Amino acid sequence: MNTMPGRHFLQIPGPTNVPDRVLRAMDMPTMDHRGPEFQALGKRVLSGIRSIFQTENPVIIYPASGTGAWEAALANTLSPGDLVLMYESGQFAALWKKLAEKLGLRTEFISGDWRRAADPEAIAQRLNADKSHEIKAVCVVHNETSTGCVAPIPAIRRAINEAGHPALFLVDTISSLGSIDFRHDEWGVDVTVGGSQKGLMLPPGLSFNALSDKALEASKSARLARSYWDWEEMLVMNKNGFFPYTPATNLLYGLDTAIEMLLDEGLSRVFARHARHSEATRRAVEAWGLEVLCRDPAQHSGSLTAVLLPDGQDADQFRKVVLDHFNMSLGAGLGKVAGKVFRIGHLGDFNDLMLLGTLGGVEMGLDIAGVPHRPAGVRAAMDFLSGHRQSEGNGKVVAG
Amino acid sequence: MNTMPGRHFLQIPGPTNVPDRVLRAMDMPTMDHRGPEFQALGKRVLSGIRSIFQTENPVIIYPASGTGAWEAALANTLSPGDLVLMYESGQFAALWKKLAEKLGLRTEFISGDWRRAADPEAIAQRLNADKSHEIKAVCVVHNETSTGCVAPIPAIRRAINEAGHPALFLVDTISSLGSIDFRHDEWGVDVTVGGSQKGLMLPPGLSFNALSDKALEASKSARLARSYWDWEEMLVMNKNGFFPYTPATNLLYGLDTAIEMLLDEGLSRVFARHARHSEATRRAVEAWGLEVLCRDPAQHSGSLTAVLLPDGQDADQFRKVVLDHFNMSLGAGLGKVAGKVFRIGHLGDFNDLMLLGTLGGVEMGLDIAGVPHRPAGVRAAMDFLSGHRQSEGNGKVVAG
Amino acid sequence: MNTMPGRHFLQIPGPTNVPDRVLRAMDMPTMDHRGPEFQALGKRVLSGIRSIFQTENPVIIYPASGTGAWEAALANTLSPGDLVLMYESGQFAALWKKLAEKLGLRTEFISGDWRRAADPEAIAQRLNADKSHEIKAVCVVHNETSTGCVAPIPAIRRAINEAGHPALFLVDTISSLGSIDFRHDEWGVDVTVGGSQKGLMLPPGLSFNALSDKALEASKSARLARSYWDWEEMLVMNKNGFFPYTPATNLLYGLDTAIEMLLDEGLSRVFARHARHSEATRRAVEAWGLEVLCRDPAQHSGSLTAVLLPDGQDADQFRKVVLDHFNMSLGAGLGKVAGKVFRIGHLGDFNDLMLLGTLGGVEMGLDIAGVPHRPAGVRAAMDFLSGHRQSEGNGKVVAG
Amino acid sequence: MNTMPGRHFLQIPGPTNVPDRVLRAMDMPTMDHRGPEFQALGKRVLSGIRSIFQTENPVIIYPASGTGAWEAALANTLSPGDLVLMYESGQFAALWKKLAEKLGLRTEFISGDWRRAADPEAIAQRLNADKSHEIKAVCVVHNETSTGCVAPIPAIRRAINEAGHPALFLVDTISSLGSIDFRHDEWGVDVTVGGSQKGLMLPPGLSFNALSDKALEASKSARLARSYWDWEEMLVMNKNGFFPYTPATNLLYGLDTAIEMLLDEGLSRVFARHARHSEATRRAVEAWGLEVLCRDPAQHSGSLTAVLLPDGQDADQFRKVVLDHFNMSLGAGLGKVAGKVFRIGHLGDFNDLMLLGTLGGVEMGLDIAGVPHRPAGVRAAMDFLSGHRQSEGNGKVVAG
Repeated sequence: MNTMPGRHFLQIPGPTNVPDRVLRAMDMPTMDHRGPEFQALGKRVLSGIRSIFQTENPVIIYPASGTGAWEAALANTLSPGDLVLMYESGQFAALWKKLAEKLGLRTEFISGDWRRAADPEAIAQRLNADKSHEIKAVCVVHNETSTGCVAPIPAIRRAINEAGHPALFLVDTISSLGSIDFRHDEWGVDVTVGGSQKGLMLPPGLSFNALSDKALEASKSARLARSYWDWEEMLVMNKNGFFPYTPATNLLYGLDTAIEMLLDEGLSRVFARHARHSEATRRAVEAWGLEVLCRDPAQHSGSLTAVLLPDGQDADQFRKVVLDHFNMSLGAGLGKVAGKVFRIGHLGDFNDLMLLGTLGGVEMGLDIAGVPHRPAGVRAAMDFLSGHRQSEGNGKVVAG
Repeated sequence: MNTMPGRHFLQIPGPTNVPDRVLRAMDMPTMDHRGPEFQALGKRVLSGIRSIFQTENPVIIYPASGTGAWEAALANTLSPGDLVLMYESGQFAALWKKLAEKLGLRTEFISGDWRRAADPEAIAQRLNADKSHEIKAVCVVHNETSTGCVAPIPAIRRAINEAGHPALFLVDTISSLGSIDFRHDEWGVDVTVGGSQKGLMLPPGLSFNALSDKALEASKSARLARSYWDWEEMLVMNKNGFFPYTPATNLLYGLDTAIEMLLDEGLSRVFARHARHSEATRRAVEAWGLEVLCRDPAQHSGSLTAVLLPDGQDADQFRKVVLDHFNMSLGAGLGKVAGKVFRIGHLGDFNDLMLLGTLGGVEMGLDIAGVPHRPAGVRAAMDFLSGHRQSEGNGKVVAG
Repeated sequence: MNTMPGRHFLQIPGPTNVPDRVLRAMDMPTMDHRGPEFQALGKRVLSGIRSIFQTENPVIIYPASGTGAWEAALANTLSPGDLVLMYESGQFAALWKKLAEKLGLRTEFISGDWRRAADPEAIAQRLNADKSHEIKAVCVVHNETSTGCVAPIPAIRRAINEAGHPALFLVDTISSLGSIDFRHDEWGVDVTVGGSQKGLMLPPGLSFNALSDKALEASKSARLARSYWDWEEMLVMNKNGFFPYTPATNLLYGLDTAIEMLLDEGLSRVFARHARHSEATRRAVEAWGLEVLCRDPAQHSGSLTAVLLPDGQDADQFRKVVLDHFNMSLGAGLGKVAGKVFRIGHLGDFNDLMLLGTLGGVEMGLDIAGVPHRPAGVRAAMDFLSGHRQSEGNGKVVAG
Repeated sequence: MNTMPGRHFLQIPGPTNVPDRVLRAMDMPTMDHRGPEFQALGKRVLSGIRSIFQTENPVIIYPASGTGAWEAALANTLSPGDLVLMYESGQFAALWKKLAEKLGLRTEFISGDWRRAADPEAIAQRLNADKSHEIKAVCVVHNETSTGCVAPIPAIRRAINEAGHPALFLVDTISSLGSIDFRHDEWGVDVTVGGSQKGLMLPPGLSFNALSDKALEASKSARLARSYWDWEEMLVMNKNGFFPYTPATNLLYGLDTAIEMLLDEGLSRVFARHARHSEATRRAVEAWGLEVLCRDPAQHSGSLTAVLLPDGQDADQFRKVVLDHFNMSLGAGLGKVAGKVFRIGHLGDFNDLMLLGTLGGVEMGLDIAGVPHRPAGVRAAMDFLSGHRQSEGNGKVVAG
């Protein structure tokens, strides 16, 4: 157990700071997963989770990590040897690709530089070239947790449509769901993959597949072996609020509460809050004189900000300084950017003062670790958050 | 939420009554699953869980239900089309068989009457006949949760050995682990499948594979597609206390506490306690004039007792009476015995007075539902539990 | 921490088994007791608690044990040397008398045999004799926690009225509030004293004074020194939902939830449930061949039953047997009946199966401790609870 | 319930942010306060609390707010009409004085300007003048929660000694205990008054009297009426770990955990941490160009900082802005400084990043509320906390 005084700042890009209400909801006695009380709960969460995905189609809830929902999305819709087009947006795209290959799929990777999200034009080009429709699915990570770039899902959908290509469209929203606007139905996604431990504000242990009719149709002929991940029995049992095997009851209690909290706040306000904290964070990074990994401002993530350290600086050493001195966990650089990047998670149950504590810890960590920077980040964030300096010359502030 | 006064009696054969200490342990903030604090936790639970399986080999912990661990046991050790020998001990054996088939395995079922556990002689006979060693694995359910019969695992191991058969030996201990003596190493099991929500006293959401060297060796050539369930990366990461994908952090907090509680009580005392409650329950059933489903007294389960109702009685209606009147969940009859049987779970964090409440609820339910019986079950259980009537004629009790 | 397996049975007559919902409500972060969020809470509990006392007058909430509310009732209404008439119903009446004397009041005790509640006729007689109205207050314990006898409050009110005596009427409902019908306004009580840890299903730490106009009027001239207990500032601050000094915030969270639970169930159903469990308990006691301490069936308490052991039996030794063997706490005999009596609490968040576990623990404890008895108590309770044997000859039960 | 996203910042000078471990400890089932398990707890907390007061004498634990412990200190040691010398250090000194008068004591107030703590010389002067030893007790607030000034207790003790005056020395440490060094024995205090909801990191509901032999001796002849607060029975029962009336069991669970946490961290480190956060806060206040209420740097409180707003600014309006915009509660100015001062609590379970969030909220609040200031406070605090700018010219920081 963490024995440093005060609250730990869990500012990795997930798992996130779980709200007390959600933790307490999970701290209730486990119930009979075949009884009437569970049935009411099951119906409530199966319905509520659709609002979060902005879909009227079924959403499957797995007692599993997000990785399981990646596997489920592929295993239910594809057959051994099928070709899947993926985009190398970062580490999680790379892991999903590796997973696909372990399942016996062929994959093709449109290479990326880890500083931009998936590019609709590159995807369009590849699909146009695929006259024989060998590609069975296009897999894109919405919010690349390793880089903090957000892919333009509607534009990719248009690219697929304009190519007249029948491939399924599979999207990973693990670190965007409940933090960044995502519309399963309106954006024409076939399978959306989600997880509990980010914007949904739950501990890890639940993951999701939101479906489309086309995905369901595909599942009927898909020949990848599957049992735990199989949608079919799930959908049958879910109709009555039940599950074909024992669900993770207490995590579902938490999900029930988390959905209620998100809908009470209102999704649009949730997204605006994340965008605001993201903007404040980028202003801090700029004020420090450091560089945000994501090159395209239009793609900046509302969930996290990956920050590049100057050459010669060890980002993991920096993170250790912050953890040891300030009881805050930051995200490591992964894969290609390991050691060069640290990531600030600003998602989930989060507010302005938590962000200031977070940015303050980074700023002091830069001091202590000896990373060259201007000590002006927190103040820049405050200028933005207080909305004050926006409007110049209001005379309220005495010059320093 | 259950709004009947007082505590719900969750007397299904799992999920079980989760102890307050375990619920409270899970109600702590989620931590960074890549940080040093998690690492210490990871090492502790990965080591501690071995004691529960009575093994010195690795145990894999999945963020998944028990069904996932069934799949994992097969997917890591077998190849498409492999033949698996199973024994029809009850509903869970049947479900495991179905799962195996969905994975692309061939199965053979030694039929059973659901009133006895897997029979070593029948298995020996079949293995002896399998001169070509077509059978790649023997799968047995240790404690059949649908019937309350316990299979003689050491005898089955001997049967395999005496047949000189190279098949792997896979055992499901989902409802026996932490309740009924089970010794992975000593009994020569290759893969043991476990779950969190029974004797381990946790909510559902974690499951386990305990391995043998032979199983690990088999995994190297096994060709069933697998990624989430793959042991290989798990074992690499587990060496340092970490996991290849996000673990179910808060359930691991609970596991840490549950292991501590089981080892503090001492496994042999835990098993004795379950055996004692099982014996008391059977005495109650006999006193009621009802029949225990399991025919062989040597196979009576320490975890649960399945009770046959007289012909013409509807066990599900009876269970509904008990739930509505007495706020107690009993287990339904499953599959072949649906509607004929109800099951009393007496496992997990349980004691004598909880058992008396349980048996009292059954006895009163029999009254109200109009099931013919003698109203002497609770008193028979008390005679046994108080240890009193054992020794005749001590003169303490005034005749009624 | 209790390390015996399963749940502890806390069957003393308070503190009682606190419901999970109440414990979890208390497990939320402490808030600013001067802020708007607290204000809403304060208004809610100050209003809700009136429903429990069945009054439209103010109820004072103290951060203190019930003993503090005893002191408050006297200190706010009386002056040094005032004479108070009390009735020796049992240990708690005796303690209240001792407290009054420590405050500088004179007391007069109508002696009782601890087997009946306060007697309206004896009180009437004494008041009629008090022509000079020297007696300033009549203090009665509604439910004597040491004996399990319930005083006829309306009859005592009538006695006071018929004597035309101006004395204040102060009633202790610590172990009846929320368990046994009590009507502050309708029954004309001037100050009602209550506590949190019994029928209100909270941990100890809050206590109450419900007031009448006459009590408020008396407080203006009462000269006992008081500050912490002073009603005046409380009433001023309470108007806006606040308190004059720091309130026990987290216990108030629990109170808020407990009031909601009681009103959701409905007070009349709460009282009926307690009466039913009390009746079942007495039937068990009779079936054991033991004697209930309270001699008058009309006065039997819905909260607890005090049981006399036969001469020569040590009730405390018996209780130790039950605690050591069965993880159940029973109440000790107090004062005059110490060692001769044990008390079974059957109040608060309680249900039929918890009662059967409780009675089963007593019955087995009698076996083990060697207390002569008939082993028929639990079954007698079940007959009553199942409502079965009420209606003879329905032929459902097979003779034993 | 607070429904703004993220954690509330409870930065009033108590109640403080209760650690999760303490909340969870309180969220365990209530136990029998007369049983062996409670006895072990009682002994543990009664012993442990002495370490916190740095005394080897008994400490009384009341189920009451701090106000109750004020009353207890007086009621146990004094008689009606006794003269008590108090020092007007601020609002809490004034409230204690008012309380003393309600109990029937005479009081004399050495007037103060609310910007300094109690002055040893003024006290010495008054005691020297009291040749007849009419003054029976000197009452001083150690850390004046309304002003943030800390009184020099050892110097006041010396003043009493040097005057050769027999008055008792009573000290209120409600907002210093567990935050600012206080040594009951070494400093020769007769009664120390403490509360649970500040440095002890508990919710409100417990309060304390630490005693001296002289105080105990005085209690034998003290004639103020008392019962609930009476030390005598407490001390008798406490010897065996029990209490004369029902204790606040679940708050004691929390106390047990809180003591363990404080002793694990080590009192000297706890005090240093508070001093450090206090210093950082003052540097922020200075950088803002605002004034700390406490005039004497040697008396600056480690628990809280009271900040004066410029003339014409409404501190309560400012606090409302901070609460509404940033979900943070700050302390109001009380009594003489109402509306002119706001108070920042930086005590209890607190760390650097929580402080930065706190100061950031104040700084942004000043922006929004239009309070003239330099926007340099958070950065000044970071300079101090990171320990960086202390040592000039280390060349790590790029000039802005």
